[in-house]
Amino acid sequence: MRIFCTLAFLILALMSIMSIAAAQDTTTLHLMPWPASVETTPHSQPLVIQSSFTVALRDNSDPHLRRAAQIFLDDLRRHTGSTAIDFSIGNDSNTAVLTVGSDHPSKEVQELGEDESYRLEVGAGRADLTAPTTLGVMRGLQTFLQLVEVTPQGFAVPQVIIQDKPRFPWRGLMIDCGRHFMPVDVIKRNLDGMAAVKMNVFHWHLSENQGFRVESKKFPKLQEMGSDGLYYTQDQVRDVIAYARDRGIRVVPEFDMPGHSTSWFVGYPDLASAPGPYSIERKWGVFDPAMDPTRESTYKFLDEFIGEMANLFPDKFFHIGGDEVNGKQWDANPKIQAFMHAHGLKNNADLQAYFNTRVQKIVAKHGKIMEGWDEILRPDLPKSIVIQSWRGQQSLADAARQGYRGLLSSGYYLDLMQPAGQHYEVDPFADGAANLTDEEKQRILGGEACEWAEYVSPENIDSRIWPRTAAIAERLWSPQNITDVNSMYTRLAYISKWLDAYGLTHNTNYAVMLERMTNGANISSLRTLTDVVEPVKGYAREGLASTEPTSLTPLNRVVDAARPESIKAREFGELVDQLISGQIKPGLEAQIRSTLMNWRDNNVQLRPLGQRSVLVQEVLPLSQNLSALAAAGLEALDYLDRGEKAPREWETQQLQLAQQAIQPKAQLLLMVAAPVQKLIQASAGDKPTDLPLPKNASD
Amino acid sequence: MRIFCTLAFLILALMSIMSIAAAQDTTTLHLMPWPASVETTPHSQPLVIQSSFTVALRDNSDPHLRRAAQIFLDDLRRHTGSTAIDFSIGNDSNTAVLTVGSDHPSKEVQELGEDESYRLEVGAGRADLTAPTTLGVMRGLQTFLQLVEVTPQGFAVPQVIIQDKPRFPWRGLMIDCGRHFMPVDVIKRNLDGMAAVKMNVFHWHLSENQGFRVESKKFPKLQEMGSDGLYYTQDQVRDVIAYARDRGIRVVPEFDMPGHSTSWFVGYPDLASAPGPYSIERKWGVFDPAMDPTRESTYKFLDEFIGEMANLFPDKFFHIGGDEVNGKQWDANPKIQAFMHAHGLKNNADLQAYFNTRVQKIVAKHGKIMEGWDEILRPDLPKSIVIQSWRGQQSLADAARQGYRGLLSSGYYLDLMQPAGQHYEVDPFADGAANLTDEEKQRILGGEACEWAEYVSPENIDSRIWPRTAAIAERLWSPQNITDVNSMYTRLAYISKWLDAYGLTHNTNYAVMLERMTNGANISSLRTLTDVVEPVKGYAREGLASTEPTSLTPLNRVVDAARPESIKAREFGELVDQLISGQIKPGLEAQIRSTLMNWRDNNVQLRPLGQRSVLVQEVLPLSQNLSALAAAGLEALDYLDRGEKAPREWETQQLQLAQQAIQPKAQLLLMVAAPVQKLIQASAGDKPTDLPLPKNASD
Repeated sequence: MRIFCTLAFLILALMSIMSIAAAQDTTTLHLMPWPASVETTPHSQPLVIQSSFTVALRDNSDPHLRRAAQIFLDDLRRHTGSTAIDFSIGNDSNTAVLTVGSDHPSKEVQELGEDESYRLEVGAGRADLTAPTTLGVMRGLQTFLQLVEVTPQGFAVPQVIIQDKPRFPWRGLMIDCGRHFMPVDVIKRNLDGMAAVKMNVFHWHLSENQGFRVESKKFPKLQEMGSDGLYYTQDQVRDVIAYARDRGIRVVPEFDMPGHSTSWFVGYPDLASAPGPYSIERKWGVFDPAMDPTRESTYKFLDEFIGEMANLFPDKFFHIGGDEVNGKQWDANPKIQAFMHAHGLKNNADLQAYFNTRVQKIVAKHGKIMEGWDEILRPDLPKSIVIQSWRGQQSLADAARQGYRGLLSSGYYLDLMQPAGQHYEVDPFADGAANLTDEEKQRILGGEACEWAEYVSPENIDSRIWPRTAAIAERLWSPQNITDVNSMYTRLAYISKWLDAYGLTHNTNYAVMLERMTNGANISSLRTLTDVVEPVKGYAREGLASTEPTSLTPLNRVVDAARPESIKAREFGELVDQLISGQIKPGLEAQIRSTLMNWRDNNVQLRPLGQRSVLVQEVLPLSQNLSALAAAGLEALDYLDRGEKAPREWETQQLQLAQQAIQPKAQLLLMVAAPVQKLIQASAGDKPTDLPLPKNASD
Repeated sequence: MRIFCTLAFLILALMSIMSIAAAQDTTTLHLMPWPASVETTPHSQPLVIQSSFTVALRDNSDPHLRRAAQIFLDDLRRHTGSTAIDFSIGNDSNTAVLTVGSDHPSKEVQELGEDESYRLEVGAGRADLTAPTTLGVMRGLQTFLQLVEVTPQGFAVPQVIIQDKPRFPWRGLMIDCGRHFMPVDVIKRNLDGMAAVKMNVFHWHLSENQGFRVESKKFPKLQEMGSDGLYYTQDQVRDVIAYARDRGIRVVPEFDMPGHSTSWFVGYPDLASAPGPYSIERKWGVFDPAMDPTRESTYKFLDEFIGEMANLFPDKFFHIGGDEVNGKQWDANPKIQAFMHAHGLKNNADLQAYFNTRVQKIVAKHGKIMEGWDEILRPDLPKSIVIQSWRGQQSLADAARQGYRGLLSSGYYLDLMQPAGQHYEVDPFADGAANLTDEEKQRILGGEACEWAEYVSPENIDSRIWPRTAAIAERLWSPQNITDVNSMYTRLAYISKWLDAYGLTHNTNYAVMLERMTNGANISSLRTLTDVVEPVKGYAREGLASTEPTSLTPLNRVVDAARPESIKAREFGELVDQLISGQIKPGLEAQIRSTLMNWRDNNVQLRPLGQRSVLVQEVLPLSQNLSALAAAGLEALDYLDRGEKAPREWETQQLQLAQQAIQPKAQLLLMVAAPVQKLIQASAGDKPTDLPLPKNASD
């Protein structure tokens, strides 16, 4: 019997019923993003991956296809722990286990909108993957990899027929390498992660007030004076682009202008709107320095610079940033004011529009399509440009109605420390964009997850990007009706571990960072606490800092190691919800009780570590609160057990404790305060209510 | 008050007393290898590492010194979690926190026997490092790094005066990249580890029957046909050498000849002593193919090849292997037999000696000193050559008496899965070498840890090398009287975690490998079991394999993830020893009891995972045994508690259980069988005895 899971999913969505039989079928397949159509054959024999595994290519002439197969075999080795030389690319479709073919090669320089669909059929002992283009083959190979699981027979792939294609043609991840430089190996392992979840655009944010990160041969003082020596050579850039191309990922560079550009002015102060000298910015925020849009020398410089970079980066799109110009240097410069007056530019927005129009012509002259943040949108720019929106669907819809293409990043900012489920619910076609015509919707190309880098180092950046980005990747790839958050979280937990094989450090560096804080002492009590805290949300961290954070601030604290989303706290919250909703589940109360006892007793273990380490010291108040909350939760359980209503006075006292425990400390939030509050309320016979995050912790 | 720890150590050693006050002083310093002399200032204020930390160089003209300081600052960032641009190299000794200087630069190409001594003084707020050469500075900087620890004030270094120098000038690690290829990043992170424990020779085993791993431009078929595409380009080799040089590590290449050379013959069959064709060997062992020592064309080839490699590898030493020639091809070749007859060569050893003499002349002609394994030692070779001994101190002593220099590897084979303590006790001057004269002792240059690569992949090789190699590094660096195994293990546990900062995966990949086996399910029960097993010892694995292992065999089993030495089992054994020796220690019995209860209950958790995964399935018998042993241990504790002697019949039955549990299963040994046996015996009033490993598990 074949089950059509897409149909099952649709019905489930319509009926608003959470995961039962069919959804279980889907979660036993650890696929993410979930394909457009999946047919499984239950109780059939899986295809076992032997060490004689070979891939046959239908067409040997496409070098990208061959390369894709090689990378697939490397990945298969990494995922199964095979040694280096087992699997091979054969020529004989009759003997090969997996036969792979595409109707057409992918473009030499990968383009927006190339067909990425594929069809994968895994049968008894054989599998077949076909696609219109080699890009589709790459996507299908990733699906095959995700199907591999250990079984009693060894590593194997279940029998399945998958037909798949992306919902949006632009599914990106932006990494800000300006604020904190990320070495090439960080970039490459993240490209592996992107390919694994079928993302296809790496947006490389390469210049910021805090650093200029690319070697320019024409203007070498950009990197020599603007980067602290931390920049990518042109060879490294080419290497990264080739690595991405091999994985079906376009690389779009961003050079932010006319603002966010202090680092340019260290070497080239004449570009700025006020006299120098300038030095690399160490603080975070929006700063005054901006390019001078009124001098021809600025455009001459940009023409040469963009020409050089247009040559280095083969992608058709070129991102000029364009965000957050405060205009103060322009206001203060009489020559600029005179220019504005002479040219009828009424305000700074007009002046920036003038600048953008000039820059767009330069970008176009070098064969590229200009992209920028919301601010660049002005009717005088040609319809070819692309808007990346940090403002949201309404902004995107407005642009689409005017004929502009755009992509959504609002709702996908990873640095805001939101849970995966929250990102997952953000749809480019929702809210302000819901009422667009089909033609207008076509102009919404997709979206990009963004990792801004105030608070990340090469050590912890992966933990900010992964696994949450996989949820965004699913939103942008899978059909719009794939929205079951529980199913997403189940698969996300699997994919998170599965990504370890690529050397991503989001899981492995967690213990490494905690061990540093304890000087090699047993970290288990620190880990127990850190498992249930999260960094404060939004831009709250800055407001809670005792001294102003800069690019020199060490990122070695518990807040830097703690995950953006506490899985332990989320799971505990679910258990509590089940309990107080009266669900009968064997062992449920015992599980909650043992968890609470563990937390209650944890502070005694952790306290001595705090006396030896400044990094542990600052989380002792949280540890104290965790123990107190757990004790309150245990008392609440006791009341519930005895069928006795907790006294009002006790309840009031414990709710105050929860209120106090949800306050940020050491820039961290104790995420179990909310579920414990529910236990307390339930034990007093009250309706459980949510415990909202305080405003200073979520802004 | 200053304590002279070296003196304290000496007294301790003389009195055979285990760690008390002074030894605690040493173990609170996590130094490894332990320096020749350490003076601490108890209760003094440590030097706090601020983000304004600067290093001043006394002499700015030595590029190696500047580079060493840069690497030191990078390492300091990695260890403290500082962001990339904090620390800096300054010029002003008056304001710098750490002032660094050497009397002389290190040689451009690092040489054997260069002075590596240094003096490090950390005072109140200032530190000073001086050394005769830049190499000594590099060693001292590593000591400074190891002194950094987190304190209530932040990261800090205690006040200390250290005078230090190595005991042996050759402290190496050999990695076999022939049997399984190791990518450059694996090599580099291991070079970081070597530098951290002051090792100074990377011995790069580059050719084997199973693979030829270096690009030759003169003989490209070597790598093209002999490597499965897995080889180092010459650029990569130069990159590795430069990386090593920056860390004070020489790189000695080994090209094994005339045996262990099948991979050469795939592309160049004429080199062999029997007609081809040849293919890359997939099996392990000693094979027949050997170079033909009787043809001039062989020496012509080697002259060109060695010339090319002598140019690529700048080190003065060139390793030609020379081990394990079985001579079968020579016996079977009439021309070779005729040649031997004509030249008065009586046997194959004579023929190999003839070969070695010819090769030595070629090596010398290209400016290098020949090195080889024990077998090459014959009186007709010049005294300049160096013998690397897998045979032991006696072999080394014999060579030294004849005037040859040598180094010890017997006792340092990491692939034999011995505990660190066992390696630690192996001294190059012990046993057969104990009675050498001082002059003869001078000829024993040091030793090398060796990682042969039948059973390692890039994923698990670090766990075979680290942390045990740090114990060998201490043996070769520290004074001969530093022999306290308990102190070593305490510091080793610390250093093991500390090495994580270099990206070494000996700790982090453990969970990653276990997670693959459970398909993302919770690994805690599998981990509990794997924590107390060890791979079988010596060469036992091959004998226990159900099918002959080859280079294609996946290395993804529990035996591949399990650590060579179970720390949990060793610690449990110590607790049991304390208990049965009648030591009164609060909580001791409770700790043993809770550990045993955890093990007893583990099998119920693990069994369901085994039904889903072939990789877990095979360890279920061990899991069953662990539970049964733990139950027996708990009963024994009960007898001891009640002061009641366990009945003889019960004891006999439980001892049989222990006997059965120590048998290898899935190529693994259950390391808690021995301490549980002791508990059983003690509970029956018998003298506890050791439970030796069975012969088939330790050969």
